Amino acid sequence: MNAPSAGWPDIDSTTRIGWIGAGVMGRSMCGHVLARGHRVTVFSRTRDKAAPLLDRGARWADRPADVARTSDVVVSMVGFPDDVRAVYLGDEGLLSAARTGMILIDMTTAPPSLAIEIDAAAAPRGIGTLDAPVSGGDVGARNATLSIMVGGDRAVFDAARPLFECLGKTIVYQGPAGAGQHAKMCNQIVIAGTMIGVCESLLYAARAGLDLETMLAAIRGGAAGCWTLDNLAPRILKRNFDPGFFVDHFVKDMGIALDEAERMKLSLPGLALARELYRSVQALGHGRCGTHALILALEHMAALAD
Amino acid sequence: MNAPSAGWPDIDSTTRIGWIGAGVMGRSMCGHVLARGHRVTVFSRTRDKAAPLLDRGARWADRPADVARTSDVVVSMVGFPDDVRAVYLGDEGLLSAARTGMILIDMTTAPPSLAIEIDAAAAPRGIGTLDAPVSGGDVGARNATLSIMVGGDRAVFDAARPLFECLGKTIVYQGPAGAGQHAKMCNQIVIAGTMIGVCESLLYAARAGLDLETMLAAIRGGAAGCWTLDNLAPRILKRNFDPGFFVDHFVKDMGIALDEAERMKLSLPGLALARELYRSVQALGHGRCGTHALILALEHMAALAD
Repeated sequence: MNAPSAGWPDIDSTTRIGWIGAGVMGRSMCGHVLARGHRVTVFSRTRDKAAPLLDRGARWADRPADVARTSDVVVSMVGFPDDVRAVYLGDEGLLSAARTGMILIDMTTAPPSLAIEIDAAAAPRGIGTLDAPVSGGDVGARNATLSIMVGGDRAVFDAARPLFECLGKTIVYQGPAGAGQHAKMCNQIVIAGTMIGVCESLLYAARAGLDLETMLAAIRGGAAGCWTLDNLAPRILKRNFDPGFFVDHFVKDMGIALDEAERMKLSLPGLALARELYRSVQALGHGRCGTHALILALEHMAALAD
Repeated sequence: MNAPSAGWPDIDSTTRIGWIGAGVMGRSMCGHVLARGHRVTVFSRTRDKAAPLLDRGARWADRPADVARTSDVVVSMVGFPDDVRAVYLGDEGLLSAARTGMILIDMTTAPPSLAIEIDAAAAPRGIGTLDAPVSGGDVGARNATLSIMVGGDRAVFDAARPLFECLGKTIVYQGPAGAGQHAKMCNQIVIAGTMIGVCESLLYAARAGLDLETMLAAIRGGAAGCWTLDNLAPRILKRNFDPGFFVDHFVKDMGIALDEAERMKLSLPGLALARELYRSVQALGHGRCGTHALILALEHMAALAD
């Protein structure tokens, strides 16, 4: 691939893709890349999780640096900000072995400031980086219908677009490094609010003796209408708290947004409250439940008051 | 009309309708009743507001009791709980003159406990009452697309259904007296949460330097999707804070829900926070703005921190 001064070549099926992270999301997403015919090299902290990808022809690498050595473009989809830091900036991280003209794409939800830090380390060496977190959860990853919010150099984004197009359906360039992560924070902030509203509403309805289905039928077509009401309220009614999206990961995301807000001298009292309530969900042992388990903490408080 | 023991006759165009309250909502709604060919008698605190209805053939009454005397079914759509109390239970209120077999329908958003109190006073006299608050705002009232949540005796609801059908499109019986108001509270609780989420998200995005339209394009089709994001976020971007739904009325509604929650020993921390934030919207002089003016209070806090 050419140096950035000559522009970034589009990704095509001859482009060698590196993939880091084979969790629920990463595994589905990497599968789409394999289906597109790319040669793929995979690293994940737990090798077993990558087995389905290796069965489909992906090659294994023992460390991120080795992924970088055998790839033109590398995508990471890991868990927590410290994982992203280690993958990019660690001793055997991607940047220890990346070459001029490579593109490195972090699709983990991580701090905007970390995306900026990685870009600052990579750009002077002619390495393109993008922060490209997603929304849409495990279902979106499986069906390649994710929403992808991208920050970084516009030319790098244009070059990487074909890869994004095999992973998601709403792909929106948000601005310079960190802007993708900022947009994802905006997404999480809205969700925090809707989740509190929906869970408090269901708890109120149950206490007031309403039939919950009947109440939902009356309100969901109007100004209270939201994705959470349509998709998660029915799961709550069935007492099904399987994740969708883990409480533990949501708490991480809210922490990132609150740190950024503090840096920007913003008070976000709703988000701060949501984080506290979700901490109590974790304290009750539900960190591996879906985010709609918020209602369990509210119910717990109500039970204590009885 | 027959006594309740014989069942409640359906409302048809010969039924004489009384109408109390000619504000933005009530005036549009009463217009639909007039269009259906009913003989209508109107009372409102401010006679001028009823002028468009009188021009269309409605008769004027000087007090609620007089409305009751000349009507078979009376609908009220007034402002605050104290207004409802005066209209129904006051010295010259509806119940001072109502007859066996009449149906009285309060469509104001008011306390469930007040609906129960009115029903308890009316039922022994063979007077049917319904609490039937609505959602859908001024647009829903104008277009007869309101969502109507109804509490009270099922047979009274069945009799009144033809009247509701000329006012709204989603008409859901919720249970005994007060259940309509409870369902409306559930609606408002969800809205309180989504509004905080949307306003905090937009504030964060602006501070982070994102293009707000671009951010919204990325998030609104996914798990953050909600009516508020689709309908009120664009108004915020245009700095148009015209009501939709007044902050002052929303604060009233949240107060009702919090009172009921306290009675039920429920902690609703998100709703309590929303009420406090909206009080600061009022304190800043925006009580007659639409509910999306919440962002003005958040922006004010941010400006103080600069």
